[in-house]
Amino acid sequence: MRATLIYGAGDVRVEDVPDAGLREPTDALVRVLRACICGSDLWPYSSKPETEQGERIGHEFVGVVEDVGSGVSAFKRGDVVVAPFVWSDNTCDFCSEGLHTSCRHGGLWARDGVDGGQGEAVRVPLADGTLVKLPVGEDDALLSSLLTLSDVFPTGHHCAVTAGVNPRTTVTVIGDGAVGLSAVLAARRLGAERIILMGRHRDRTDLGREFGATDVVAERGEEGAERVRDLTGGDGTHTVLECVGLLPALETAFAAVRDGGVVSRVGAPQYSDVPADFGVFFRNVTLTGGVAPARAYIEELMPDVLDGTLQPGRVFDRAVPLDDIADGYRAMAEREALKVIVEP
Amino acid sequence: MRATLIYGAGDVRVEDVPDAGLREPTDALVRVLRACICGSDLWPYSSKPETEQGERIGHEFVGVVEDVGSGVSAFKRGDVVVAPFVWSDNTCDFCSEGLHTSCRHGGLWARDGVDGGQGEAVRVPLADGTLVKLPVGEDDALLSSLLTLSDVFPTGHHCAVTAGVNPRTTVTVIGDGAVGLSAVLAARRLGAERIILMGRHRDRTDLGREFGATDVVAERGEEGAERVRDLTGGDGTHTVLECVGLLPALETAFAAVRDGGVVSRVGAPQYSDVPADFGVFFRNVTLTGGVAPARAYIEELMPDVLDGTLQPGRVFDRAVPLDDIADGYRAMAEREALKVIVEP
Repeated sequence: MRATLIYGAGDVRVEDVPDAGLREPTDALVRVLRACICGSDLWPYSSKPETEQGERIGHEFVGVVEDVGSGVSAFKRGDVVVAPFVWSDNTCDFCSEGLHTSCRHGGLWARDGVDGGQGEAVRVPLADGTLVKLPVGEDDALLSSLLTLSDVFPTGHHCAVTAGVNPRTTVTVIGDGAVGLSAVLAARRLGAERIILMGRHRDRTDLGREFGATDVVAERGEEGAERVRDLTGGDGTHTVLECVGLLPALETAFAAVRDGGVVSRVGAPQYSDVPADFGVFFRNVTLTGGVAPARAYIEELMPDVLDGTLQPGRVFDRAVPLDDIADGYRAMAEREALKVIVEP
Repeated sequence: MRATLIYGAGDVRVEDVPDAGLREPTDALVRVLRACICGSDLWPYSSKPETEQGERIGHEFVGVVEDVGSGVSAFKRGDVVVAPFVWSDNTCDFCSEGLHTSCRHGGLWARDGVDGGQGEAVRVPLADGTLVKLPVGEDDALLSSLLTLSDVFPTGHHCAVTAGVNPRTTVTVIGDGAVGLSAVLAARRLGAERIILMGRHRDRTDLGREFGATDVVAERGEEGAERVRDLTGGDGTHTVLECVGLLPALETAFAAVRDGGVVSRVGAPQYSDVPADFGVFFRNVTLTGGVAPARAYIEELMPDVLDGTLQPGRVFDRAVPLDDIADGYRAMAEREALKVIVEP
């Protein structure tokens, strides 16, 4: 079958790889209908050292079950499914607490003999725990929006949930990428009435306004934080959703948050330490967030997608066939595309 | 009157200063019955550059109201009161939210013309908002325990509350100083059944056991964190209460906390950055805490002290007259005393 491998920075190739197939009784074989490129895929795309041996990549996909192992009971051939970006048993104590990313038996796609999502098919470990059935057909118009349930929309949602967003909290979202816009959508869904989106790309912030942003701040850094404070009577917002992953964004978050407020981060951190000095301490600012346990949120978020209330799939502004995925990476890396959908 | 001034590291003196007296209609004049030395006072005691002009110091005291301004309605001459370690109006939006340390009109003791607590008397600004009446006499046996309501006990409580301690959470407390022991007491009060106290001073950890600690870990750093993980099936505890303020303690906290757990810090941070790399991110660890809004907690904590259920005053293991306060500082700095009470 064909699948995507990354060999180093800027070097993504689609190659023939061994066909995906069942190995364990708990596996399912899923033919990929749609996959997509994640902002986090751009980190290796920008910096991975060149290697002889390419590595599989991709962790967001919807597909059709082609076969199941003898230990799989919740799915059968023909089911349309979405896979969250970490596979998990959905039964251990961490999963029961909603922290599927720390599942005692789970793992990551495209590692340790597990297929990546950016290919024609995927062996899905612990299928009963990992997959969620989608009540739609293979060519449903909602498929792109349902694909966002694999990662980007739950990631924005996780950011808003861990920050404690509710109708009484003001919100700043830092970053107008697909995660930032998803965080806007999630914050609005949780009832936030004041959502300040920090971003500089007009077409993206325009979509952010449609998703629920009430204000847009184009300035960055201390200047941007000052604008947020200006918009909130000098105080900053109760919550700041950091959807970038770079230290300056996190510093802006601490500067834009109100005393006693919460900074939540879901951008994969490209830094090792965060500022948390006496000033932050005296202001009682909390830092939370982390990698999103998407599996925990899919059932909760899906109804709003199915009934058309929310259209998180609008973050996709380009589609490429699998064989052209390298151009999709290039387009996202050059900010030419917001988020790219891949059709094997 | 006599009051304490700090001139530099190791240089604390009791001198004659201008008598405390009313300045604003909202002031009260309080004669100090008991004050104490805070662990945070030891930071300047260990590192403050020598100055010509000493600075007032001290922020924990109980006393008797001697006089009130025309704008004070809640207190009268003769009332026995406790002052939290930040003065505040108790009416602004931050105070209403329980974050008196960010009060829009409040401030710190021993700064900007406000007296310090380690003296014979204090002018209390915004007395109606700041003070809390104690239903005891001037020489009540509970006075020492009630004095802890000014700072150390609410600080331990704040640590436990912000960490989300409840009967279902396991707890690690880092630090066997007065704050750490108070955090043990507070965690037990909130229902925690498993409290691991990390500390190396046997007499202090013994008191910690009496306060509710179920386990004591004397090892520090990674070795200590490993012991905590050993005690919890390899996972670490749901909450870690960091009551030291030094970076190694915070690093231990991150190593000892369970995935999805919370590190709360109330030790005044002697560092500027905290480790929050991809590992912490992937484990969804939250960092919270900060300076404790003691005022917010006094009414809640007082009944347990008044009825003898809790004896937070047991952290005091030495008393000195005001004129000998320098020896109290020395004893605390040299770990000869746990916490020193001062009797003007």
